[in-house]
Amino acid sequence: MAHDDCIFCKIIDGSIPSEKIYEDSDVVAFLDINPTRPGHALVVPREHTKDFISSDPALLSRAIAGVQKVAGKVMSAMDADGFVLAALNGPAAGQEVFHLHFHVIPRKEGDGALIGFGPKTPYKEGEIAEVADKIRAAG
Amino acid sequence: MAHDDCIFCKIIDGSIPSEKIYEDSDVVAFLDINPTRPGHALVVPREHTKDFISSDPALLSRAIAGVQKVAGKVMSAMDADGFVLAALNGPAAGQEVFHLHFHVIPRKEGDGALIGFGPKTPYKEGEIAEVADKIRAAG
Repeated sequence: MAHDDCIFCKIIDGSIPSEKIYEDSDVVAFLDINPTRPGHALVVPREHTKDFISSDPALLSRAIAGVQKVAGKVMSAMDADGFVLAALNGPAAGQEVFHLHFHVIPRKEGDGALIGFGPKTPYKEGEIAEVADKIRAAG
Repeated sequence: MAHDDCIFCKIIDGSIPSEKIYEDSDVVAFLDINPTRPGHALVVPREHTKDFISSDPALLSRAIAGVQKVAGKVMSAMDADGFVLAALNGPAAGQEVFHLHFHVIPRKEGDGALIGFGPKTPYKEGEIAEVADKIRAAG
């Protein structure tokens, strides 16, 4: 069900204009109006769901096929050499709109875009095993 | 089928050691040995497939459910406020191992990790519609 205060629900239903580039029964894709690279697309499930972690796994399984189709179209149209696929989950990760969306950002060799995960922070001696134990034990 | 020269196939079959944190019939997850944040996990399909764009959509649909489970465990264990989910497709996007893998990177408020998409490059007047037309027309 659409949420009255959700900008992406309004984009899906057309009450807010967007450059839609793909839609099927599960997802709608449109261009990010403030792109990292031209062709930066957002793929959203039609069904309102807050973020990746809280989504019905069946919804994710259907949505990811649409993400792949959009990525193929974006790659082809933008003559891209690759792309970044990302979903930011929660404000701490940079999520700004709370309707699940996958970013598809086309990349070219040497485009100089600073898309990455930032500096690495190596584990201290023995730390990786402790972290793994914690995660294995987590529900 | 496992590829002899694929480091992730060797991690899956155990011939290269790793800190595995989750596995099911479709995916194996282990810790990135050079993490952006502690708990940085990689989720890989058991079946060797080069990258996101070239994968069987059915494989992606099954894998994404495992990614969600791993994200939940990482969030819980690391007491994270959020996470970045990403797949880098192609060397131009930073892909280094050519066996599809999803990064799950836990984030906390104020952790200062520079994970993002880099500077925005606004569209020029009219450009967004032209880009959208190209993508809509792409196969």
